[in-house]
Amino acid sequence: MQRNILLTVEYDGTDFSGWQIQSDQRTVQQDIQDLLREMLQEPELKVQGSGRTDAGVHALGMGVNFKTGHSIPLNGLVLGMNAQLAPDVVVLDAREVPYDFCARFWARGKRYRYCIWNHERPSALQRTRAWYIHQPLDMEAMYAASRYLLGRHDFSAFRASGCSAKHPYRDIYEITVQREGSMIVCEVAGSAFLRHMVRNLAGALVEVGLGKQEPEWIRDLLATKDRRQGARTAPSHGLYLVHVNYDLPPA
Amino acid sequence: MQRNILLTVEYDGTDFSGWQIQSDQRTVQQDIQDLLREMLQEPELKVQGSGRTDAGVHALGMGVNFKTGHSIPLNGLVLGMNAQLAPDVVVLDAREVPYDFCARFWARGKRYRYCIWNHERPSALQRTRAWYIHQPLDMEAMYAASRYLLGRHDFSAFRASGCSAKHPYRDIYEITVQREGSMIVCEVAGSAFLRHMVRNLAGALVEVGLGKQEPEWIRDLLATKDRRQGARTAPSHGLYLVHVNYDLPPA
Repeated sequence: MQRNILLTVEYDGTDFSGWQIQSDQRTVQQDIQDLLREMLQEPELKVQGSGRTDAGVHALGMGVNFKTGHSIPLNGLVLGMNAQLAPDVVVLDAREVPYDFCARFWARGKRYRYCIWNHERPSALQRTRAWYIHQPLDMEAMYAASRYLLGRHDFSAFRASGCSAKHPYRDIYEITVQREGSMIVCEVAGSAFLRHMVRNLAGALVEVGLGKQEPEWIRDLLATKDRRQGARTAPSHGLYLVHVNYDLPPA
Repeated sequence: MQRNILLTVEYDGTDFSGWQIQSDQRTVQQDIQDLLREMLQEPELKVQGSGRTDAGVHALGMGVNFKTGHSIPLNGLVLGMNAQLAPDVVVLDAREVPYDFCARFWARGKRYRYCIWNHERPSALQRTRAWYIHQPLDMEAMYAASRYLLGRHDFSAFRASGCSAKHPYRDIYEITVQREGSMIVCEVAGSAFLRHMVRNLAGALVEVGLGKQEPEWIRDLLATKDRRQGARTAPSHGLYLVHVNYDLPPA
């Protein structure tokens, strides 16, 4: 009998050329797919992620599904995969899902985190985990700016060129901007995201935090619908895919 | 005029064979000394750390001093060093200290942190930052056990063979054991530490957390003064040198 299995996967994006398979590059999708093909002896097996992540982006909970005829128990699958995957990829969970489930198309929402190391000096331990900005950032201004992003908007001004989405409207349910010591953590939850959208939001919030723009600039920027008016794209290594929501019955 | 300069240094120990210079190994002391010799054009310059750290151990605030005849301003020194050091070593601060100051012998106290990732599954992002233990640890028992370590004791039972200290008495001022989600953080502050002492303390606290020993076992273990009675040494990659105290006038 064919089964459909959803994995929850954590990875450190530092040594990967992103999620998606590319020839001659190390990617997370390739590492997982190669291992499953070998473990389950199914050379045609394909793994599907909830979406792509760029080179350097981390994941705490990427959704990944694949179909298999193998009867391996779920816990054995997780333990076996973690024993054989490189230590910068870990399978946190596996569950059976309906046969028509797809990690990409069934995603109902995603949560991302963007981390900024805001200190006079860089950090050795955070160098691949957070964007280093040495000028003090104004948290109140960043928070005020973030309020304009809540709700449903045309996010064209935050959309990378080459984004293949059918339309630029997206819903943001929640944004938090908090400081914990020298680390500024921005979390964004929404229905879905355009290409580079979170990194472009982070880049724009930093412009406000630096005092180069007023918080209201974010509102005006949204209204331009023009990416060329926006701030620089924040670097990939500060970004984490935290969680993907699926409409599934309790496990 | 000769100056004596104290650096505060952060490093990610993952890719180092520890602090101390060893031929044909990458060490933090070597990286810093090589750079300073070149930057300041003083081929005999020597750097002194507050102590050694083992391969894989991290530092948030290693104390390092060196003497130089160069007049480079302190902030220029820090910026120049950080521009040229590999990104897994960062100079956080530089200050002038009395000419007879020595980072090793003037240390009046140290603070270490030991991190444990306590979750059913390992973590990709914490793999070089915390000891992974999948069985749930009993925090109350670990806390109770830690109380026996406070104060002045003969720590022979927690001392590595090959330790060169003159006597095994050490003072522990403070120990905290706290859980933040899946991360257990143990901090220990004391006058000084024997070789592998913090890793041996962490190993023993974990035995108690696993329920293999009662909290009182720590008291009895101290009394044996016998390392062979102790627990395994916790792995190096969970350990952080957080801070070194010096009796110095305010900067």
